Amino acid sequence: MKDKQQNILIIGAGLCGSLLALRLGQRGYNVTVMEMRPDMRKVDISAGRSINLAFSDRGIKAMNMVGILDKVMPLCIPMNGRMLHDLEGNTILSPYSGREEEYINSISRGGLNSLLLDEAEMHDNVTIHFNKKCLSVDFEKTTATFKDYNSQSEFVEDADVIFATDGAGSAMRKSYYLSKKFLFSFSQNWLSHGYKELSILPNENGDFKTFKNALHIWGRESFMLIALPNLDGSFTVTLFLSYDEGEYNFNNLTTKENVLEFFGKYFKDALELMPNLAEDFFENPTSPLGTVKCSPWHYKGNTLLMGDAAHAIVPFYGQGMNASFEDVTVLDQVLEEGHKDWETIFKIYESRRKKDTDAIADLAIDNFHEMKGHVNHPNFREKRKLEMALEKEFPEYASKYSLVTFNEDMGYQEAMLRGRAQDKAILNMLAEGTLNMEDDLKTNFEKVKVETDHILEEDRIAKNA
Amino acid sequence: MKDKQQNILIIGAGLCGSLLALRLGQRGYNVTVMEMRPDMRKVDISAGRSINLAFSDRGIKAMNMVGILDKVMPLCIPMNGRMLHDLEGNTILSPYSGREEEYINSISRGGLNSLLLDEAEMHDNVTIHFNKKCLSVDFEKTTATFKDYNSQSEFVEDADVIFATDGAGSAMRKSYYLSKKFLFSFSQNWLSHGYKELSILPNENGDFKTFKNALHIWGRESFMLIALPNLDGSFTVTLFLSYDEGEYNFNNLTTKENVLEFFGKYFKDALELMPNLAEDFFENPTSPLGTVKCSPWHYKGNTLLMGDAAHAIVPFYGQGMNASFEDVTVLDQVLEEGHKDWETIFKIYESRRKKDTDAIADLAIDNFHEMKGHVNHPNFREKRKLEMALEKEFPEYASKYSLVTFNEDMGYQEAMLRGRAQDKAILNMLAEGTLNMEDDLKTNFEKVKVETDHILEEDRIAKNA
Repeated sequence: MKDKQQNILIIGAGLCGSLLALRLGQRGYNVTVMEMRPDMRKVDISAGRSINLAFSDRGIKAMNMVGILDKVMPLCIPMNGRMLHDLEGNTILSPYSGREEEYINSISRGGLNSLLLDEAEMHDNVTIHFNKKCLSVDFEKTTATFKDYNSQSEFVEDADVIFATDGAGSAMRKSYYLSKKFLFSFSQNWLSHGYKELSILPNENGDFKTFKNALHIWGRESFMLIALPNLDGSFTVTLFLSYDEGEYNFNNLTTKENVLEFFGKYFKDALELMPNLAEDFFENPTSPLGTVKCSPWHYKGNTLLMGDAAHAIVPFYGQGMNASFEDVTVLDQVLEEGHKDWETIFKIYESRRKKDTDAIADLAIDNFHEMKGHVNHPNFREKRKLEMALEKEFPEYASKYSLVTFNEDMGYQEAMLRGRAQDKAILNMLAEGTLNMEDDLKTNFEKVKVETDHILEEDRIAKNA
Repeated sequence: MKDKQQNILIIGAGLCGSLLALRLGQRGYNVTVMEMRPDMRKVDISAGRSINLAFSDRGIKAMNMVGILDKVMPLCIPMNGRMLHDLEGNTILSPYSGREEEYINSISRGGLNSLLLDEAEMHDNVTIHFNKKCLSVDFEKTTATFKDYNSQSEFVEDADVIFATDGAGSAMRKSYYLSKKFLFSFSQNWLSHGYKELSILPNENGDFKTFKNALHIWGRESFMLIALPNLDGSFTVTLFLSYDEGEYNFNNLTTKENVLEFFGKYFKDALELMPNLAEDFFENPTSPLGTVKCSPWHYKGNTLLMGDAAHAIVPFYGQGMNASFEDVTVLDQVLEEGHKDWETIFKIYESRRKKDTDAIADLAIDNFHEMKGHVNHPNFREKRKLEMALEKEFPEYASKYSLVTFNEDMGYQEAMLRGRAQDKAILNMLAEGTLNMEDDLKTNFEKVKVETDHILEEDRIAKNA
């Protein structure tokens, strides 16, 4: 891969595509990026996409790779834990970790994406074009067809290698699927729940109306509301609700009265902060929540899917953006190893990466159930209490959440397997009474370790029989 | 559903479609069936589809439902166990159950399908048309468009209800997917292995060249060969092999010399029975092995996917046909309950059935690994030995294989969960030394029961935390 004069085409200048463009630009490749949307630095295009996102250690690692973490941090609002709101409006803060330095951040999608575009464009060898929608990719010829939204004309772009970072609805993935030229495994799975974005506006002084440094959760078992802070003093609020099941659902919440009744009954304290609720509710779209998995991601050494185009996940672990950034980190490590051709690079990349993006997809669905229900259950809370204490006391202990979120050098799959075994160990020992919260912490730490290893070993034996 | 004058359209007259036509015909509906292929009773169309299949208790239950088991049994060859062939050609018979009356059957696809077509056509209210290929289904209007292969013309068929039993490549499923009119979850997953059908012909007297009443397996860890007997004294042999991995694979087995070398090295005793190997190998197609899952299967009360169209699975549990037949049994039970409209019927059917077809899809993939490798491992064989003894002694004991295959009144999901827990219990106790094969059987039976329940309980606690 010494030949840096190669022409690389990137489809999509979202978070993953613009980071990839920046990194390949830093590596000296000739990079052309085609983005469907207008330039977000000139036009407001936030509507319909989540306004803020959770940014954590895997994302931080990627920003360090390209050397711009110092420019990213000012865009962040630390969220140290989950602020759980009950039906009466009582709140309790449940920290994400027992260690103070481990927290996640609320960050503006637009702010971060604009920064990445700016940084990429600083490289003379990187060019970004907007309003160019990809229609299809000929992965055998390594060409892509675009439509120019300004001129309404179509044109074909030729490249040595094409990366598709064009999101969950990827045009290149569709070309893979429809071509039937190779065995393409593919899945799209929708949750029965959709989501709708709402907002808590700042108060008259421009200040936050409720506690700033938390991810607020109103978990109601079969549905939930969450809120993340923005730099301007507002919160972006998201309602996750079934389309058609339960007493209240997106299909039957059709009048202002219904909506106010629903919020008054289940989210009383949130409703008090949202005089603008009904307006938001009927102006903003209801969107579905889907998981996309596929394989292979690459076609020979010609093309590669990355980010949401390869693995779209539901938002409940706050890892969508972090996982897409980590894609670039992992690809960069493979590039650093100096393999001789793109096909080898893509094969190694996919074999290292696929298991981890599959794992975070599954973890994200698990966390939906955790957030809307389990966080309120006594046995879950007891587990969290113990884990907070363990994390505080023992640097080598990390809960499943911490393994996934704050251990950027452990892959998602390993984090999932270890984290699930640990959860199972603690919950079962608590249920059996073999773990006593009154015992000293060191004793309990050892018990959890031994039982976790035992569970992993039993799974290993059953699997390899 | 008192109105039996409703017009029902069934797309596809394969095993599932013809059984469904027969059953709905028996129930008095006006049934029209459209089949893409020519009438198999008049034209030989076996090429490219598996010639024989495993027929077991869930299939038997369905044949009893329509009252034709006595006509099916003469088509069957009992297979009492797996005949395992090692590299040197030594064989060992591993029974499917410790109970003599529990075995599976090799049955001819064509023979059984023809019987079902005959039986369905005996009803005046059932009409079957051949050479009519479904192009698409308008599930909102409840119409389907067909192409007549004889006249080459297209026509539209209107119905009150449409059932699509048109197999893994279902045209109606494609219409669901492409329409984007509702959230359709869908997955297609390919194994890295493909398959090719070969044959062991009868000897000059028309007799079987090797033991008749077994499913023969040459498991070689990363690939395998199997053989099932046919009524004419031949065996249908299937090679399961990677497309592109390993020393020998479908992509590099391109010469007669290569093929003979490969078989000589790994399937010596089989090769001796197959003088026709090279001819078969290069004449017969190599086909992929895929799993299809989707949901919802129905669109309101208009349309329903059944059989492989709803849930195509890999062949390794011998349950593909049995599961499709069971679809009809389950639907029939729901019909029997007398619900007021098709939408209610379809909703209840899917809610009862989907979890089970998901389970058998996963079990079938597990069994690929069991057949090609585990059957040869010492700990697996020790487990099977214990289970044979338990099944022989205790009528209430059933191995995972027996739960899936011989317990037609237990759903696949329950069979999977209980069967996996049981396997894990036995394997772990054997590994830990807490289960001693020398102990008396009653003691070991109790140990397995207690440990299995313990595992299920621990999983339950972890899941509901």
